[in-house]
Amino acid sequence: MGLANRTSPSAADYAQYPERFNNWGRWGEADELGTLNHITGDVRRNAAALVQEGRAVSMARPIQTQPGPANPWPAHHLVGMPHARGAGDYLAMFLHSFVDTHIDGLSHIAGPNGLAWNGKRLGENGMPIEHSGTVDFWRDGIVTRGVLYDVPRFRGTDFVASGEPVHGWELQDVADAQGVVPQSGDAVIIRSGHDPYWAATGRPPGFESVAGVHVSALEFLHDTEASVLVWDFQDAPSHDQGLPNPHGSEIPIALHVHAIALPHMGLPLVDNANLEDIAVACAELGRWAFQVVVAPLIIPGATGSPVNPLAIL
Amino acid sequence: MGLANRTSPSAADYAQYPERFNNWGRWGEADELGTLNHITGDVRRNAAALVQEGRAVSMARPIQTQPGPANPWPAHHLVGMPHARGAGDYLAMFLHSFVDTHIDGLSHIAGPNGLAWNGKRLGENGMPIEHSGTVDFWRDGIVTRGVLYDVPRFRGTDFVASGEPVHGWELQDVADAQGVVPQSGDAVIIRSGHDPYWAATGRPPGFESVAGVHVSALEFLHDTEASVLVWDFQDAPSHDQGLPNPHGSEIPIALHVHAIALPHMGLPLVDNANLEDIAVACAELGRWAFQVVVAPLIIPGATGSPVNPLAIL
Amino acid sequence: MGLANRTSPSAADYAQYPERFNNWGRWGEADELGTLNHITGDVRRNAAALVQEGRAVSMARPIQTQPGPANPWPAHHLVGMPHARGAGDYLAMFLHSFVDTHIDGLSHIAGPNGLAWNGKRLGENGMPIEHSGTVDFWRDGIVTRGVLYDVPRFRGTDFVASGEPVHGWELQDVADAQGVVPQSGDAVIIRSGHDPYWAATGRPPGFESVAGVHVSALEFLHDTEASVLVWDFQDAPSHDQGLPNPHGSEIPIALHVHAIALPHMGLPLVDNANLEDIAVACAELGRWAFQVVVAPLIIPGATGSPVNPLAIL
Amino acid sequence: MGLANRTSPSAADYAQYPERFNNWGRWGEADELGTLNHITGDVRRNAAALVQEGRAVSMARPIQTQPGPANPWPAHHLVGMPHARGAGDYLAMFLHSFVDTHIDGLSHIAGPNGLAWNGKRLGENGMPIEHSGTVDFWRDGIVTRGVLYDVPRFRGTDFVASGEPVHGWELQDVADAQGVVPQSGDAVIIRSGHDPYWAATGRPPGFESVAGVHVSALEFLHDTEASVLVWDFQDAPSHDQGLPNPHGSEIPIALHVHAIALPHMGLPLVDNANLEDIAVACAELGRWAFQVVVAPLIIPGATGSPVNPLAIL
Repeated sequence: MGLANRTSPSAADYAQYPERFNNWGRWGEADELGTLNHITGDVRRNAAALVQEGRAVSMARPIQTQPGPANPWPAHHLVGMPHARGAGDYLAMFLHSFVDTHIDGLSHIAGPNGLAWNGKRLGENGMPIEHSGTVDFWRDGIVTRGVLYDVPRFRGTDFVASGEPVHGWELQDVADAQGVVPQSGDAVIIRSGHDPYWAATGRPPGFESVAGVHVSALEFLHDTEASVLVWDFQDAPSHDQGLPNPHGSEIPIALHVHAIALPHMGLPLVDNANLEDIAVACAELGRWAFQVVVAPLIIPGATGSPVNPLAIL
Repeated sequence: MGLANRTSPSAADYAQYPERFNNWGRWGEADELGTLNHITGDVRRNAAALVQEGRAVSMARPIQTQPGPANPWPAHHLVGMPHARGAGDYLAMFLHSFVDTHIDGLSHIAGPNGLAWNGKRLGENGMPIEHSGTVDFWRDGIVTRGVLYDVPRFRGTDFVASGEPVHGWELQDVADAQGVVPQSGDAVIIRSGHDPYWAATGRPPGFESVAGVHVSALEFLHDTEASVLVWDFQDAPSHDQGLPNPHGSEIPIALHVHAIALPHMGLPLVDNANLEDIAVACAELGRWAFQVVVAPLIIPGATGSPVNPLAIL
Repeated sequence: MGLANRTSPSAADYAQYPERFNNWGRWGEADELGTLNHITGDVRRNAAALVQEGRAVSMARPIQTQPGPANPWPAHHLVGMPHARGAGDYLAMFLHSFVDTHIDGLSHIAGPNGLAWNGKRLGENGMPIEHSGTVDFWRDGIVTRGVLYDVPRFRGTDFVASGEPVHGWELQDVADAQGVVPQSGDAVIIRSGHDPYWAATGRPPGFESVAGVHVSALEFLHDTEASVLVWDFQDAPSHDQGLPNPHGSEIPIALHVHAIALPHMGLPLVDNANLEDIAVACAELGRWAFQVVVAPLIIPGATGSPVNPLAIL
Repeated sequence: MGLANRTSPSAADYAQYPERFNNWGRWGEADELGTLNHITGDVRRNAAALVQEGRAVSMARPIQTQPGPANPWPAHHLVGMPHARGAGDYLAMFLHSFVDTHIDGLSHIAGPNGLAWNGKRLGENGMPIEHSGTVDFWRDGIVTRGVLYDVPRFRGTDFVASGEPVHGWELQDVADAQGVVPQSGDAVIIRSGHDPYWAATGRPPGFESVAGVHVSALEFLHDTEASVLVWDFQDAPSHDQGLPNPHGSEIPIALHVHAIALPHMGLPLVDNANLEDIAVACAELGRWAFQVVVAPLIIPGATGSPVNPLAIL
């Protein structure tokens, strides 16, 4: 089963994922970095060596201040309350929207056993009782090698279509085709082609991914020791997973990958990335590995932060 | 006068600064990068080559959610509205506080002639009429060489004391002492020792810097072609500038450096940085130059953004 | 011209309104109540005598937390951050939305001469330099007689249609038909039938009223000494006013009534009322006058407040 | 025990309160009004008859936009974003602060059995699973007779001091002294003298009441069929109650009255009232009963709302 024979996990297989891909205790009881532990000094130094053209590319979308199907409560941004030739700004926003680029802290989602990353027990408000799993532990940022897995380019399509989710073994195929060897500590950046998808369908997105990444990718992420997952589409929907919703009726949106990555693997996720510019840059330069920097705001006790992840080539 | 003979500008000299250090039109009429134009591909590549230990250090303070003398309206952060084992977050904040680390867009402050960066005219709300001077133009971030100017270390004190502002010629002295040659495109990072200051005085800060950087530093920044200024104390107060408040009674706080840097030079500022950790790291490694990454959020039309600037050594 | 001969004002007539209906100085230089001065102790006592059935009816819409054409930035409301069996709430909203029921303070809009109510000069931020024109002056609320002018009922239609705005003389006709004599201090409550309109058209509203009240009503409000205007549609659009937009291109929405009522008459406005329930109650009881209570929140320095105006019959 | 013999309840007595003063089912399974059911048409009509001078008095404090010991996260209010001679406002606030005048919905606090008003079961987020206990059910406001219980005036002191909480039997004594007979449907307004207290001590308040109302008042409220409780100090602290904190360590603040009034009695509370002006007015007029109007904003699903309660004499 799995990557080796290119088959999707059964429901029974998936039920083993919390144990199979578990990293609790791997870096100590008090660990707050999760798979970011894969990023060593060597990893960072080698990543910096990939800066050859000296070119920086954003992988974020603008913060959305207009409503849309996936954005019923857009950010409130006020500017221009003039006082003596100076303008002030105010920003009020939900940090886990379905449109704004943000990083998920490890305590954003707990496991089915009611425990968060590293086995931390939840309090009444759904957060770990002790200070744990929040983005302020990542104050020194995520600086590592990033590899863009440009799936539509590999497939020769404009985007990942519904019914054809991104599988773990396909990521290996993409790496091979792009001439990249996955390394421990990589930021795995999976492009499904969010923008071309919507351009083609002409409809803005709703809450659930219409296409995206299959849970079979978790084995790839685990085995290759990815440090963080950056994606433009998120978890493939339930009908493409072929698996029941891990949150049952409690969350109507399929979060099959989230449900394993955050609480069990301790793998941070950067949701709602914009991977169009970096895809163009990589194709132009003929290389798909570069330095990546993600700098979460230090929001004490927050389970997420808006970010503008940069690729530096 | 000036750097050469180590003298502060007179009021008449300072009145010439908007012309003397003006960069309007230098990079075209439509330019939105200002002094970030000094950051070339070579600059970025050379900066990456400074990553030797593979160590990343935050230069941000935590977002302050508690009130204080300089923070009467602390950020509102809500977390833990549980739904099916997942926590949400909400954040509402002023972007130009006196405590949170943020970058100033070029249109945050206009010049005395009522024009903003690159000569853009202001509309009724105090913002440029055309879309200009806002942080969304910096979506690809600021990636360059950073040089820490550790002034207290140079002086053999714990912090820059009131009455002894940081002058432009002292920055050159610090560079010499640290063995660094200022280069075009540098992020100039001036440490005054904000935290030790408050530890020593036992009182939290009010709105105005109690000490900080003198306008004589502008000549240094201009001549060395700095791309961005990062600082923990901001503009030295009026009595240390020896100059009248450029905003008269309209803004009670001295912003002598801001008033030239933003609208006339087009030099972005990163206010309220935390430079304690990087000072320790530099002293430990015996070097004061490193790769710097600042990634503003892409907030359309905003004159500022919270940031977590990273030093990578 | 005017009410007497049932003709609309010409552009030249309307240009005289700021003078003709001006109340500056009428109640002293320091006055902050405007036409609320018409509400005397007698008025309040007589209004209370109208409470006969002992029935209270809201004239507010729910605060809209969902987006719509006239509500691109819906209020952010968070609830249920549990702690020990108790739920907290957070609310963030624009106070002058086009959907939520709110009262306009007198300084919400200034006159074309750049002066606000009672001739107060504006500062740089568009607010009077001295504390003036804000809702905190109305801390003791608005308690008076309310008269519902149910225009669709009078017309025998479901709603006021585009092209047929509510004129001042028609208000007198409605009063006659309803058997009410307008009195000094009245809250004039003009129902255009907002809800039936949208039910009929099937489309939610955009920013501008599609129908509503003509400026000819200002003469009626002035002559009858109305204290406050409560309405479900607001100013009729420009093409129904037959007058150029008083704000030119600066505000794309027609605010012909606002532009006279607030700065010149000192007449508070309660925008976006919900008059369906009170219309039913009045028709049922066969009377259109009742006690009205509007209690603005005491928001220091605010030009508006959300309110839930009550009719008590 | 109790009112009759002027003794405080023992811990065992208090443990019986959820049953003894329970109103679940009293007005039907679907009831959302709780003790507001005591307000009949007759009550409203009789209340209106108390309007004799035609004078309206606010019982609210201004919304606090400055921090203080009991207000670490003051409301964010922005005004003056000028556009064409008009100012906009934005307001962001916690609805259950310890300084702003607000009404508590019945689901704000649940009982020790984990059930909210009328026996409604709680969902995971601490709110009733079905739509229940929220302020939007009170859209038609609270209009009734109010009786001010001016305890300091009765005692001949400036304020209710620590160690001398307001007992139920004392409320009856105050009513007798003021010549008022408690009636079904009354808004019971208990003045402890919050402002004089702080003026005398010179220190602003912290989170917990330093003095206030004893749980023995619940029997009075229940037996006299009060509809709503309005107070300036809230629950007397634990050491004045002589009872353990009903929420144990989960809420560090004593909420002995809240814990019975909201979930079990269905009695709305108006917290943080300002009763200074109404106390002066009542003393001046020599009467302590008047019409009261409280108009919660219609915030769908909210457990509270800021209010400006009005007394009309």
